[in-house]
Amino acid sequence: MDATIKKICGGDVRLASRLIRDIEDKIPEAKAKIKKLYAYTGKSFIIGITGAPGAGKSTLTDALITELRKKNKTIGVLAVDPTSPFTGGAILGDRIRMQRHAEDPGVFVRSLATRGALGGLSQAAGDAIHVMEAMGKDIIIVETVGIGQQEIDIINHAHSVVVVLVPGMGDEIQTMKAGLMEIADVFVVNKANRAGAKQLQMELTSMLNLSSKAAAGWRPPIVMIGDAFEPATFAENTAELAQKIEEHHIYLQQSGKLTERMHRKAMAEINDALSACLLEPVLSSLAGSGELESFAEKIRNRKADPYSVAEEITQKFFKKQGKK
Amino acid sequence: MDATIKKICGGDVRLASRLIRDIEDKIPEAKAKIKKLYAYTGKSFIIGITGAPGAGKSTLTDALITELRKKNKTIGVLAVDPTSPFTGGAILGDRIRMQRHAEDPGVFVRSLATRGALGGLSQAAGDAIHVMEAMGKDIIIVETVGIGQQEIDIINHAHSVVVVLVPGMGDEIQTMKAGLMEIADVFVVNKANRAGAKQLQMELTSMLNLSSKAAAGWRPPIVMIGDAFEPATFAENTAELAQKIEEHHIYLQQSGKLTERMHRKAMAEINDALSACLLEPVLSSLAGSGELESFAEKIRNRKADPYSVAEEITQKFFKKQGKK
Repeated sequence: MDATIKKICGGDVRLASRLIRDIEDKIPEAKAKIKKLYAYTGKSFIIGITGAPGAGKSTLTDALITELRKKNKTIGVLAVDPTSPFTGGAILGDRIRMQRHAEDPGVFVRSLATRGALGGLSQAAGDAIHVMEAMGKDIIIVETVGIGQQEIDIINHAHSVVVVLVPGMGDEIQTMKAGLMEIADVFVVNKANRAGAKQLQMELTSMLNLSSKAAAGWRPPIVMIGDAFEPATFAENTAELAQKIEEHHIYLQQSGKLTERMHRKAMAEINDALSACLLEPVLSSLAGSGELESFAEKIRNRKADPYSVAEEITQKFFKKQGKK
Repeated sequence: MDATIKKICGGDVRLASRLIRDIEDKIPEAKAKIKKLYAYTGKSFIIGITGAPGAGKSTLTDALITELRKKNKTIGVLAVDPTSPFTGGAILGDRIRMQRHAEDPGVFVRSLATRGALGGLSQAAGDAIHVMEAMGKDIIIVETVGIGQQEIDIINHAHSVVVVLVPGMGDEIQTMKAGLMEIADVFVVNKANRAGAKQLQMELTSMLNLSSKAAAGWRPPIVMIGDAFEPATFAENTAELAQKIEEHHIYLQQSGKLTERMHRKAMAEINDALSACLLEPVLSSLAGSGELESFAEKIRNRKADPYSVAEEITQKFFKKQGKK
């Protein structure tokens, strides 16, 4: 076994952190490391937490860590930051908020930023999760702002998905619930002391009553969580959340659904890897030649269209491959 | 000229709508149509409107339409719905809200949903915009929920980007402002009658004071927009927004930045088309054989890793191409 892999499997925080950073930076060696490390993954339970900005996901993650640590579970946390194609880094806030766990060797928190590559964030998140799995973490929490397709791709890495809603987010969030319904295993109505919380709960309940998924075995529970500034109630509520997630885990194992999810996850991972594997050599074959630039100019002047250009590039590349 | 293309360029709503639906459904003929239509695109001004759910984007779009129609501009609106990989359709709400423009032949509103394909939504949005351009619309408004990378890819199709913020969305939205700063050409503080609006405006101002982009020619203005239920103030505020967008358009033209943006857009379009062009033949060469399924099983059982599988598939495919 490779020395680095061995150390990461032994829980080496420094080397694991470096590998995650290398994944993020798309350093080619990182891919080779993940390949070697893959055999030691697949044993952690992965919880996804998603919801709109301001829904209180980080505070909930923090509370979940506290709950799970009481049961002596080791934990990895991956906070995925969708804004960072710009900032080039991760949201500092997440780390700051989780700092009270920073001294706990049983908790490993990392943030992940994308740098704008196609399909890159979901793949990088998947690989970062693999690193944490290899480290032997019992539970991995992936936190992401869940709105777009890409965030949903990320959340598909999880076994159990918690969707966090808050009252009073306007009617646009309401129309989204139909979509969230498909991915949620557990609903949280957060800031449940606010006006509109009861109504949100009722709406979710009636949607669940109509849902075929809810009828087919697992009915996603709705956990009401009060204000974090009332510590006693909040601790009680988040303990309930941890309990519901555990129940879902048991359900997945007993029903055989866990295998089904793992299979779906494997299919998504092939797709991600395939996309990178195909696009990278083509783009690098063009890099530096100025060819891409002149194609872009043709497109801009409407002397060519993007599809014909892509076909031309692809044909050329395939021909070159054939001569090898 | 192809008869369908000719009719679309003449503004045929029925054929344009069908082509957009075909793009959405990934019907192969749609691609051929877009290729033919491409030469007639590139003359519209494209406005992107983005912001969190509940920020009031649709109401603003509706008000912008009213403003722009006063100046006799013809308008296309594309509402991109990120939840629809699940619902399989578009948010009805958007269309309902814009119904008062439904009878106006100068306004063409369509919603777009993704069906979960890699990079598909951005590409489909780009093509739907091309259809509206070919129809001869003076201005095209693209509305999207702007959080993840994919939504930002969509907004990159626009020349002028309006970022809509509302007060009191929690500190997570605050950390996002750094990212939004990079893409915003005009800021809107919506629901500016709410508590915290002044503070949000001040924070944006001080961020702009620090921004190198703002110093380099165009300083994104901040437009405060009051409650839509106070029609007089609201109309005044949205007229100001329309004015600021027009000023930005003039700035782009005079500074040469419009060409720069069009070039960047062309590069992104090549990337999108290339990704589809490469991935599709590989996936279809595997379809039906059960090969993909058995690869997924190997991955699930940790007998293989996704990267090695992707490499194997790619190598095989390239070899086959070479023999052709």
